[in-house]
Amino acid sequence: MRIWKKHVDVYEHINKIDDYLRKALTANQPVLNDAINDLLSAGGKRLRPVMVLLSGHFGRYDEKKLIPLSAAVEIMHMATLVHDDIIDESELRRGRPTTRSRWGNQVAVLTGDFLFTKAFSLVTHNVSQKNMHHLSNAIRAICEGEVDQFQSRYTKDISILRYLKRIARKTAALFSLSCQVGASESNCRYETIRCLKKFGHDFGMAFQITDDLLDFNGSRNEMGKPLYTDFAEGIYTLPIIYTLQNKQYGERMESYIGRKDLSEPEIREVGQLVVESGGLDKSKQLALRYLDRCHESLGHLPNNSAKGAMKELVEELIERRY
Amino acid sequence: MRIWKKHVDVYEHINKIDDYLRKALTANQPVLNDAINDLLSAGGKRLRPVMVLLSGHFGRYDEKKLIPLSAAVEIMHMATLVHDDIIDESELRRGRPTTRSRWGNQVAVLTGDFLFTKAFSLVTHNVSQKNMHHLSNAIRAICEGEVDQFQSRYTKDISILRYLKRIARKTAALFSLSCQVGASESNCRYETIRCLKKFGHDFGMAFQITDDLLDFNGSRNEMGKPLYTDFAEGIYTLPIIYTLQNKQYGERMESYIGRKDLSEPEIREVGQLVVESGGLDKSKQLALRYLDRCHESLGHLPNNSAKGAMKELVEELIERRY
Repeated sequence: MRIWKKHVDVYEHINKIDDYLRKALTANQPVLNDAINDLLSAGGKRLRPVMVLLSGHFGRYDEKKLIPLSAAVEIMHMATLVHDDIIDESELRRGRPTTRSRWGNQVAVLTGDFLFTKAFSLVTHNVSQKNMHHLSNAIRAICEGEVDQFQSRYTKDISILRYLKRIARKTAALFSLSCQVGASESNCRYETIRCLKKFGHDFGMAFQITDDLLDFNGSRNEMGKPLYTDFAEGIYTLPIIYTLQNKQYGERMESYIGRKDLSEPEIREVGQLVVESGGLDKSKQLALRYLDRCHESLGHLPNNSAKGAMKELVEELIERRY
Repeated sequence: MRIWKKHVDVYEHINKIDDYLRKALTANQPVLNDAINDLLSAGGKRLRPVMVLLSGHFGRYDEKKLIPLSAAVEIMHMATLVHDDIIDESELRRGRPTTRSRWGNQVAVLTGDFLFTKAFSLVTHNVSQKNMHHLSNAIRAICEGEVDQFQSRYTKDISILRYLKRIARKTAALFSLSCQVGASESNCRYETIRCLKKFGHDFGMAFQITDDLLDFNGSRNEMGKPLYTDFAEGIYTLPIIYTLQNKQYGERMESYIGRKDLSEPEIREVGQLVVESGGLDKSKQLALRYLDRCHESLGHLPNNSAKGAMKELVEELIERRY
């Protein structure tokens, strides 16, 4: 990624996060250790911990405090991924077998629990009780968003508002929290914390909308999972909702909603409808609007190398994903 | 239970814990709420939160701090039960359908996660960072113990030492922790905390051994689960290990180890071997030895109504279970 070359400090920070993760994540149980090492070697963009560290640069940056905190945020994210894969019965993530497909649901449940509690014990040392409370709330929001998504599978009970509310909990909450705690633990002014928190929320919203778009226009190799899986599993995301609202295409799309028995050609037709109706484009536009808001929030913040890096993360999301 | 009549304060405390649990455990998601309410109405002995409160009476008892803390411990315990039932694929707990059998593994995973994070956010307000750290460590120990148990199903790789190590993590850790944090948050002296922590450990060990015995001599109605389920699932507990060590019966028992295809009569024969070899009696004796140690620890503590209640809990475990 371009950004790391320009902002060497961030690149170094990611290495520090990874080093810290490797050291922190050891279990007194061989299988747990294997499962965790497998997760660590799968890598990841480490976007959330990077947000923690970048936000910290707007105040008194204290590495000893922020590296464990950012690692804890990443570990919580890893835990939700491991449990998500149980919920979605996923075989692959980032092109590799998931914990559940390799070790079974049982080990996956416990690996996630282990990671959750590890994350909490990492922050108990350094982080204020207020921010720990925010952290737990963010994870609870993720659970609520996930249950909501799971429960409304295959139902027609969908709207843009409900979709946005769901991804706000499922994804944006943790991005927003990452920026908030990074800034707050670095003693930033209230106004700065508020701006960064909003930046994180909008970034998270754009990130999830983009992620949902990739189910319709990504390539299997790039993402490590096949196209149209969300739709086939009854998870109706923004492009589908826009298509349903389209006068010309809505009715045809509706005939595919709620069906668990779709054939390959039918699913491909869904993919075509989403493109032809402009549902995909409208979704992209909404993601771009969230990214505009990100720039707006950054505009209120003082110029520094962290702000530059954040701007590039926003550009990165625009370029890479569309 | 006898104890509550003699020690009215404890009875009141249990009501307070239950009230607090009902108020604290609300989710912004209807299905999560249903699953949680179902867990709450299933009841439970609330032994762990009671240990927190009783231990608190050895120091400066502060209800405002201890009730949320004890509720948090119970919620963590509830979370581990919900996830355990996924791991064991259990249909019933306390005679009622489990969360996973009623709402599916997916909702069960998220209900457990929700509970874990709720518990952490309850304690972030009141509890010292040191004790929060101990709490996370106890939950991690439970995960390690559970993975260990799951991984060694159907294997011959069992010994009394490994069994004791496993139940120490799986069960005794949370009992010990309950006493420790209750005492520590009430500013008890170091020596008192140490004694109570040890009491909790020994009580937890006796509790788990007794629980494992019930798989061989409890009645289905009493416990809400059929006999010999642990053995049939390849979980070899203390009575089995003792029987394996018996010169006369060991060989016959060994022929049943590692087999997933046992018939009803074969499983009943296992039950007989455990009785005839004295494996059941030896296990009871070990449980009693742990309960003796409980009395010993209590002997080092000052006399008060909490100590009386703890003694009765120990007696209760002896009388009710054997």
